[in-house]
Amino acid sequence: MFEKVTIIGLGLIGSSIARNVLKHKLAKTLVTADINKDVCEKLVELELGHIVTDDLALGVEDADLVILAVPVGAMESVAKVIAPNLKQGAIVSDTGSVKVSVIEQIKPYLHKGVELVPAHPIAGTEFSGPESGFIELFEKKWCIITPLPETDVRAVEKVSEFWEAMGAVINIMDPQHHDLVLGITSHLPHLIAYTIVGTAEELSDDIKSEVIQFSASGFRDFTRIAASDPTMWRDVFLNNKDAVLEVLQRFNEDLSAMQKAIRKGDGEYLYQRFDKTRAIRKAIIEQKVGS
Amino acid sequence: MFEKVTIIGLGLIGSSIARNVLKHKLAKTLVTADINKDVCEKLVELELGHIVTDDLALGVEDADLVILAVPVGAMESVAKVIAPNLKQGAIVSDTGSVKVSVIEQIKPYLHKGVELVPAHPIAGTEFSGPESGFIELFEKKWCIITPLPETDVRAVEKVSEFWEAMGAVINIMDPQHHDLVLGITSHLPHLIAYTIVGTAEELSDDIKSEVIQFSASGFRDFTRIAASDPTMWRDVFLNNKDAVLEVLQRFNEDLSAMQKAIRKGDGEYLYQRFDKTRAIRKAIIEQKVGS
Repeated sequence: MFEKVTIIGLGLIGSSIARNVLKHKLAKTLVTADINKDVCEKLVELELGHIVTDDLALGVEDADLVILAVPVGAMESVAKVIAPNLKQGAIVSDTGSVKVSVIEQIKPYLHKGVELVPAHPIAGTEFSGPESGFIELFEKKWCIITPLPETDVRAVEKVSEFWEAMGAVINIMDPQHHDLVLGITSHLPHLIAYTIVGTAEELSDDIKSEVIQFSASGFRDFTRIAASDPTMWRDVFLNNKDAVLEVLQRFNEDLSAMQKAIRKGDGEYLYQRFDKTRAIRKAIIEQKVGS
Repeated sequence: MFEKVTIIGLGLIGSSIARNVLKHKLAKTLVTADINKDVCEKLVELELGHIVTDDLALGVEDADLVILAVPVGAMESVAKVIAPNLKQGAIVSDTGSVKVSVIEQIKPYLHKGVELVPAHPIAGTEFSGPESGFIELFEKKWCIITPLPETDVRAVEKVSEFWEAMGAVINIMDPQHHDLVLGITSHLPHLIAYTIVGTAEELSDDIKSEVIQFSASGFRDFTRIAASDPTMWRDVFLNNKDAVLEVLQRFNEDLSAMQKAIRKGDGEYLYQRFDKTRAIRKAIIEQKVGS
């Protein structure tokens, strides 16, 4: 599919892409580049990449496709380092959970003749690092692509085919809209989960040990979400500030209403609210992609 | 183990107990009693009980063990109806997610010679009704028993053995303490999940359909929790008001701090919070019971 593909940042997502490129032979040459030398050693050990390097600028030389799979807050510094070495006709893509900010970070550094195709595979686990990646991670999962008005259609097609070869299903979306939708479906739930587990973390030691011991459905699920990579999520919140604060405000209003209903003993209100949410669950389990 | 066991309220929990009583022969006679005639018809169809009745008072006659598996808000009305028909030496137990309120609702109606052994199996799914129960529901799950100071030790032992025969692991706890611990591990997470899915439910239709389409890890988990039985959960919040409002207040304070950190762009604060919560996850996955 490509002569040379370079993946920068080999965490859960980057290493899962690398595994797919090798398995499905999506590139003649796969370069895996990470500034962390320990990660590079791990990559050599796992045989993830024909060339493994901690020199990002060197890693992108002659690459047809460069994928930035680094935390959202690291995009600009990576773009700055690699941009001078990108060949004419190269495609730069990424896997960031936020799109407007990532585009703003990368775009200014790219010279004419290099195409930017922002992408976001909606897939992940609570584990991180190159050893946690796996082949099937993207299977039947959405990959949202948010092209700019000036992005070459052929570049978008190539990136789409690349993700489809890994089992993903493509959806094209406006970057701003992506950030709002994901703010609700992913960023807010993560913030809430981190908060509630943090609230438990601050309890006195005796209650905390019981909370752990009797963690029921509910809290247990929240702790899984709250075990996600802290650097990645810090960057998501810093880079999707507006959308997150907007949905958080709506959530806060709704939570205040719930609180008031509990305090007043308004069972009718609570029942209505609890009954309504079942419809969304039903619609979600009927989905074929991303389940 | 018992001559005659009567289960009142045959939803997910009650019908799972019934399945276990029959499979493990925990009683010579199993009576399943539910005021809902449709449920009774279903019970006959599923062959869940030697005697199926919608007359609760009749159902408890001569029973050695009576288990109230009805929503927490229905305990008092059931206790009132059955109390005159309970035999001397009978044990009354329950499966409510709240303990202080349930004890207050049942205790005043029981005459001398009837033992109350409040219990709470920490097990469940998002499904409800007699057809959703299954044999393995309680396996390796906690069953918390919250005896009163006056409860006969032998009655507590009998109820413990009953639950152990279904695969549960027993923990004895003070009722007040139970309500606080479960307020954190179960009630607050459910309230939050219901709220966030409700927030999504109120979005404009076009965004809502995309939220459903791209529901990522996080929101998807929340919708599962928010699909739980609305009557049961309404009653939990109305009957564990104080503990829930207390933990909710702590949660609100922590969420405000997160919100402020996002607004101010305080990455250091966010990272510290997100990193800390991993320890709790680690402790939870190392637990052997309830996983």
